[in-house]
Amino acid sequence: MTEATKTVIVGQSKPILNYVTACITMFNGGADHVVLRSRGEAINMAVDVAQLLKKRFFSQVQISKIQIDGEDVVSRDGRQLSLPVLEIELSMPKAQSTT
Amino acid sequence: MTEATKTVIVGQSKPILNYVTACITMFNGGADHVVLRSRGEAINMAVDVAQLLKKRFFSQVQISKIQIDGEDVVSRDGRQLSLPVLEIELSMPKAQSTT
Repeated sequence: MTEATKTVIVGQSKPILNYVTACITMFNGGADHVVLRSRGEAINMAVDVAQLLKKRFFSQVQISKIQIDGEDVVSRDGRQLSLPVLEIELSMPKAQSTT
Repeated sequence: MTEATKTVIVGQSKPILNYVTACITMFNGGADHVVLRSRGEAINMAVDVAQLLKKRFFSQVQISKIQIDGEDVVSRDGRQLSLPVLEIELSMPKAQSTT
């Protein structure tokens, strides 16, 4: 179970510290990788979460992969939209992630 | 001069197509790499620019590197802020970039 990759979906509705806390919980629970997934206007929040986590909480966390992508969605008024998607993969080096 | 890496700073003040056009101009001018640099709330726009460019204009463009970083700035009211920064490097394969 320690090899798990967990995903945190970053939205805009909650305060940024909620997502940081979610990541900390996952790392403390033994996850090796946590993927921050966000789309549209929440993308800058995902970058912020990664930065905050690295600066204030786990300085040993590494950003192992960043991916961008697009997702086609239909908006409420029926229009076809292409939303940008950003995925940031954070990794915790082995030595620190003993549960 | 063809080995040049150009940087486009993506802000929020201009329409998204302006940045796409700037990239196209640089690639057509012989640039091999164009770096989209953005910070704060403009980050999602940078991802959008990259997606749009790839989807609508140059399907052969590749995203060669994505980097996130933080930048310390002082806001207008004197507070210390940490802004997230995202840099997306786009590359044009050689065969297409003959000037």
